[in-house]
Amino acid sequence: MNHENDDPLYLEDLRVGQRFTSSVYALSEEQIKAFAAEFDPQPFHLDNAAAQTSIFRGLAASGWHTAAITMRLLVTSKMRFAAGTIGLGGEIEWPLPVRPGDSLHVESEITEISPSRTKPDRGVVTVRSVTFNQEGAEVQRLIAKLLIFRRSQKSD
Amino acid sequence: MNHENDDPLYLEDLRVGQRFTSSVYALSEEQIKAFAAEFDPQPFHLDNAAAQTSIFRGLAASGWHTAAITMRLLVTSKMRFAAGTIGLGGEIEWPLPVRPGDSLHVESEITEISPSRTKPDRGVVTVRSVTFNQEGAEVQRLIAKLLIFRRSQKSD
Repeated sequence: MNHENDDPLYLEDLRVGQRFTSSVYALSEEQIKAFAAEFDPQPFHLDNAAAQTSIFRGLAASGWHTAAITMRLLVTSKMRFAAGTIGLGGEIEWPLPVRPGDSLHVESEITEISPSRTKPDRGVVTVRSVTFNQEGAEVQRLIAKLLIFRRSQKSD
Repeated sequence: MNHENDDPLYLEDLRVGQRFTSSVYALSEEQIKAFAAEFDPQPFHLDNAAAQTSIFRGLAASGWHTAAITMRLLVTSKMRFAAGTIGLGGEIEWPLPVRPGDSLHVESEITEISPSRTKPDRGVVTVRSVTFNQEGAEVQRLIAKLLIFRRSQKSD
């Protein structure tokens, strides 16, 4: 079940099993190094020669860079929630490194919907988002808890 | 038990209960908006007026920005691992928003050490890192699984 139009989504619009596919983000070596210089200054994210002798066997993007790109792909996809994509937290895994020149996209599925017991205007929605490279390999798995509001009862 | 010197750490140097405190990172409104424009372009991260009427009631940093800053604070702290800070994944929560002008620091504790059963040169270390603002409030909780190598048996 895919969400096909551009209307912003409320809690009532969501169903377990709903799927969303993002657009594609191509990542350059310069972007990998710039993000790493600011947020994850380690040799295997910054320096090609040092990366060759590291566990990554070549330059690799910071996992937090992959996470940030995944967020961009999610918030610019058709999985657009009326009050925004507000993450409470989640679980993240990086099974494979992201490399210079990789083109990433995200496939998401709603796996759980829990209306709030105390606040009738909202609920927590669990979304499983897998980030793939251009070869179809999984480079990130994210299970996120999102705060989603109802259409019918606004909080203010 | 605090780690006090600057030597890079190997698996043999680590103990459950070991603690590390990072330096401080001050975050500006401009940085919040620049990160959001690139990775999390939502009104409550980009626009002060729109943020006022959002659930955040004022401009808030992207949670992924807080995560990236936390990584910077970790890799530049004294919790410096010989082969680098290589995250396999983890669990993350954002209990409170980060605001323009906040000064963040991270307090980490090793909570589990699991030597690999199949690869004697390495193990997986679980580190709980809490990111605090200048008021001592928890803005992020991260439980990360790190790949850590032994001193005595190199893989190459």
